[in-house]
Amino acid sequence: MKSILDYETVALADERDAIVIIDQTLLPGQTKLIDLKTGEEIWNAIYLLQVRGAPAIGVCAGFGIYILMKHSKASSEEEFLSELKKNKDYLNSSRPTAVNLSWALERMEHKVISFIEEEKRAGRSFDKEAVIKVMHDESEAIKAEDIDVCRRIGENGLTLLKKGDGILTHCNAGQLATCKYGTATAPIYLGHERGYDFHVYCDETRPLLQGARLTAYELHSAGIDTTLICDNMSASIMKAGKIQAIFVGCDRVAANGDAANKIGTSVVATVAKHYGIPFYVCAPTSTIDMNTFTGDDIVIEQRKPEEVTDMWYKERMAPEGVKVYNPAFDVTDNSLISGIVTEYGVLRAPYDKAIKEMFEQNK
Amino acid sequence: MKSILDYETVALADERDAIVIIDQTLLPGQTKLIDLKTGEEIWNAIYLLQVRGAPAIGVCAGFGIYILMKHSKASSEEEFLSELKKNKDYLNSSRPTAVNLSWALERMEHKVISFIEEEKRAGRSFDKEAVIKVMHDESEAIKAEDIDVCRRIGENGLTLLKKGDGILTHCNAGQLATCKYGTATAPIYLGHERGYDFHVYCDETRPLLQGARLTAYELHSAGIDTTLICDNMSASIMKAGKIQAIFVGCDRVAANGDAANKIGTSVVATVAKHYGIPFYVCAPTSTIDMNTFTGDDIVIEQRKPEEVTDMWYKERMAPEGVKVYNPAFDVTDNSLISGIVTEYGVLRAPYDKAIKEMFEQNK
Repeated sequence: MKSILDYETVALADERDAIVIIDQTLLPGQTKLIDLKTGEEIWNAIYLLQVRGAPAIGVCAGFGIYILMKHSKASSEEEFLSELKKNKDYLNSSRPTAVNLSWALERMEHKVISFIEEEKRAGRSFDKEAVIKVMHDESEAIKAEDIDVCRRIGENGLTLLKKGDGILTHCNAGQLATCKYGTATAPIYLGHERGYDFHVYCDETRPLLQGARLTAYELHSAGIDTTLICDNMSASIMKAGKIQAIFVGCDRVAANGDAANKIGTSVVATVAKHYGIPFYVCAPTSTIDMNTFTGDDIVIEQRKPEEVTDMWYKERMAPEGVKVYNPAFDVTDNSLISGIVTEYGVLRAPYDKAIKEMFEQNK
Repeated sequence: MKSILDYETVALADERDAIVIIDQTLLPGQTKLIDLKTGEEIWNAIYLLQVRGAPAIGVCAGFGIYILMKHSKASSEEEFLSELKKNKDYLNSSRPTAVNLSWALERMEHKVISFIEEEKRAGRSFDKEAVIKVMHDESEAIKAEDIDVCRRIGENGLTLLKKGDGILTHCNAGQLATCKYGTATAPIYLGHERGYDFHVYCDETRPLLQGARLTAYELHSAGIDTTLICDNMSASIMKAGKIQAIFVGCDRVAANGDAANKIGTSVVATVAKHYGIPFYVCAPTSTIDMNTFTGDDIVIEQRKPEEVTDMWYKERMAPEGVKVYNPAFDVTDNSLISGIVTEYGVLRAPYDKAIKEMFEQNK
């Protein structure tokens, strides 16, 4: 088996006008790279979760809008911008709630408009080739920034670990959710490259099993000592002294440090607190939302019952008609978090102050 | 759908020389009563988990040894006892680690031997019909005692609840594991019959899904408001104020009150403690083992990886070669337990003292 680190989750193959992704719907059984060339292929890949994870989706969208405009037949600035907007709206409709998707598409469009305006101010007329070159560079920049942020989170997280540590993670905040290294997994990969000999435990993460299907796959592929557990085994391994630190990702961090992440994260945090084991949230600063004051302001998506009762199974595993409660996320109270690991460093409580200062210093 | 309370998990149909059980391997899709008549049928039913749960297995074994001896061709005491021992050893081999299985078989044999000795002392010779009558009555007594103990646990547990309460339970300590009422579910059934309007949440209980397949089924069938959740959603519902008490069963309680139960129980207990929600263990006194001093003395069975990676699924859900940690039970520290509900009352900390006193008073 090749290591996940020998791949990139999303890459541009400019010479053949394609985005190359690992088709995540085939994992863990099959590691297959596929080319996305048409708008429909890109749209479907995002919609069908062949590519997933907020940062990875953002990068894919950036490359996508570039690939779709690369051979534009537009003969004027107006035509070009109109075509760009059409493609942007189309790709954006693939997963409407994914913030990084619209963020990346807006950033690409904004860059094009800014460039055209600069050119005008410099007295130059619309140059399609130059605009396309700008789009290429901007899409690669989005990817490079993602890799850079993950690597820096990894370096900062690694300062919290020592050789031989047992680490528990929940869901997939791994390389498969980003372009390289992941967020929660970045300290693990960097440490592994430097001979830290970690023992990593992955919660399988019901009901969608991202831990079993994705995290266990990618860590195991990289030669890291990886053990899969059910979500309800966390107390068992913590009590047995197998875990020295917990690293998880997050979907959104509120201004007070409360962190929304995959359902079950706050269970792990609560058990960790009980056993005195540090619990770290890995968060690119792009996920810290100063307009969300506390975790109570985060609306939790409820998902369909069949994910719990039927999905993956040969037959239904619950009685017909029973009610199912299936929240996609939970919020971990800041009091349960030992540190928030960002690309700028490890934030410590009180988080409201630490977050504000971090943004002040890195404006 | 008929209510589970309209059935008995295990019953004797003496008129047709059969044990009637609900075939639990067909749940939750199909509620089917089956007859067990031959030794092989009884052995298979226990081995294949068509009947499961320590008390239910004990009752089934008691009926089983009676049914197998009922038409004995033995012409002497020696022949009868030899045949009895052979059948006992055979049934006992169906699940060697199930304590109630060997306990019930020993009790039946012991009863037969005592009766024969009494008869001898009274100057009477071996009377096969009389012995078989004794076996019938003893097997029904085992069942009646199980029902009585569950009902009393239910009454004692119900004193801890009030109308409209939300209750969380883990795994199946329900009627399907006993003859009637169950242990952790007994307060729920009794309360439901008296109009308490409980809202019950069932952990699905990975990897064997006893919560989804059995507990959700039986509670829902009885008309109780039942909601299924994944094991990692406990913090989410507790934080939302949906849970006022947790009731679980147990496999063994140590002399200091530490309780071994299905994997994940101690996770629920830890989260409950964090949210200030009372956590109760329902334990027939037969599960309190004074020879086990603390939970550390309980050896935890490790089960095969395929239960986590493959079982129930259409295809394998984890990468080939990854390690799996799959303990069947965990131990909940007595400090996390708000009360131990027995047939004699609700024990409170310090448990070493409370347990000793309870046994003293009910010798």
